[in-house]
Amino acid sequence: MLKLADARQLIAAAEAKAAEIGQPMNIAVVDAGGNLIAHVRMDGAWIGSIDISINKAFTSRAFDITTRDLGSNSQPGQQFFGIHASNGGRIMVFAGGIPLRQNGEVVGAIGVSGGSGEQDHAVAEAGAAAL
Amino acid sequence: MLKLADARQLIAAAEAKAAEIGQPMNIAVVDAGGNLIAHVRMDGAWIGSIDISINKAFTSRAFDITTRDLGSNSQPGQQFFGIHASNGGRIMVFAGGIPLRQNGEVVGAIGVSGGSGEQDHAVAEAGAAAL
Amino acid sequence: MLKLADARQLIAAAEAKAAEIGQPMNIAVVDAGGNLIAHVRMDGAWIGSIDISINKAFTSRAFDITTRDLGSNSQPGQQFFGIHASNGGRIMVFAGGIPLRQNGEVVGAIGVSGGSGEQDHAVAEAGAAAL
Amino acid sequence: MLKLADARQLIAAAEAKAAEIGQPMNIAVVDAGGNLIAHVRMDGAWIGSIDISINKAFTSRAFDITTRDLGSNSQPGQQFFGIHASNGGRIMVFAGGIPLRQNGEVVGAIGVSGGSGEQDHAVAEAGAAAL
Repeated sequence: MLKLADARQLIAAAEAKAAEIGQPMNIAVVDAGGNLIAHVRMDGAWIGSIDISINKAFTSRAFDITTRDLGSNSQPGQQFFGIHASNGGRIMVFAGGIPLRQNGEVVGAIGVSGGSGEQDHAVAEAGAAAL
Repeated sequence: MLKLADARQLIAAAEAKAAEIGQPMNIAVVDAGGNLIAHVRMDGAWIGSIDISINKAFTSRAFDITTRDLGSNSQPGQQFFGIHASNGGRIMVFAGGIPLRQNGEVVGAIGVSGGSGEQDHAVAEAGAAAL
Repeated sequence: MLKLADARQLIAAAEAKAAEIGQPMNIAVVDAGGNLIAHVRMDGAWIGSIDISINKAFTSRAFDITTRDLGSNSQPGQQFFGIHASNGGRIMVFAGGIPLRQNGEVVGAIGVSGGSGEQDHAVAEAGAAAL
Repeated sequence: MLKLADARQLIAAAEAKAAEIGQPMNIAVVDAGGNLIAHVRMDGAWIGSIDISINKAFTSRAFDITTRDLGSNSQPGQQFFGIHASNGGRIMVFAGGIPLRQNGEVVGAIGVSGGSGEQDHAVAEAGAAAL
């Protein structure tokens, strides 16, 4: 079970990566139930990304998939096109959400928003690696 | 009129198919009014698919069509593009929802979510066939 | 961790109680994350109670309390008056939701709706006792 | 202008108070725009209180008032009764939210949820005092 101390460790690693690439980010961590454990908005990060970071984390746990991969499957003509309208608008279909695994099981997810899709994904990866 | 006993029979058939293909699913059945009769989430199935299974069933009854077919009509450039924004976010435009017919009349619908579009549709079909 | 088989056992016990008192009910079970595992609407039960049963279960897990007790604390002038407006309208402040405990820990909740508050609570209790 | 470092300082002080009274809490800090800077859910705190802590902070900044005082004004028969239905369900009318002032100006707010109204308010006060 993911604890607040774990979430903080992941967020610290993600923040360090965001600082390294010079792009302030919103970073959120959810537990196995998809419920928020912790969120931070770095100084100067977009306010529109508060919701997105939290919901990227939710989405990655909701389907045990990165939001980047879900995004590929959710383009027009693809098998999950329209999934972004489900779950009360909480499904994010662009990069920045990554499931967190321990001993092969998904125990939560991290969501990052504040830059390009590539940047968000890189920062989320740095966070996930700290677990 | 679809009864709880019918819904359970459909769900059991759908579960058997899901077990056969090795993919845990959310399965929901709605009545002629589009209202939920029963829902199950098989152990290990995605939590993001709870809402989707219920709303695929709702959608299939709402328009008396499979969500796979509705999806084809709802791609960019097609006649129903944008329909996923209607009905308060309850319209699902990807495979897994199938209307239930008795004596030529739609009496409800089944919705399945938890795998690929093809898997979801196959499991829903197995459920519908049990009516 | 609550499984689908557990949820079905609880629902069966709740249904038996509902049949005994002669009032058809909606019955829902959620897991430790507040996410729906299973729902049934007994034949003839109110369609307005679908949402209520699911959200009574959610509420009981969200605050580890029966919705009857939360209701007492949420009347005008009481400390939680207004809590029903939180969590996107998912908080139910009247009887019928009961947390499920195993070895002293809350592992989920059951929610029942379809009759008087007293009836709903009695049916939920019968369900919870089957764990 | 409130920074992430400030929010963390407030949260640390609030956490210390929550630990002292032995009640795990959700703690959130918003800026002058009412937008979330940071949130933590202490281990064991209610998942229903995630939304409430964030929205108590939002409410306290939205009206530059503690949610305890707003609550007194929002009881049946009082001048603001019904305000909890505004702002898309984000207005919390029970104790736990406190505006943050610097040089006489409101620069944000703190919101706490996880215990009784009295406990939530005490923890929020401990947080606010750390500014």
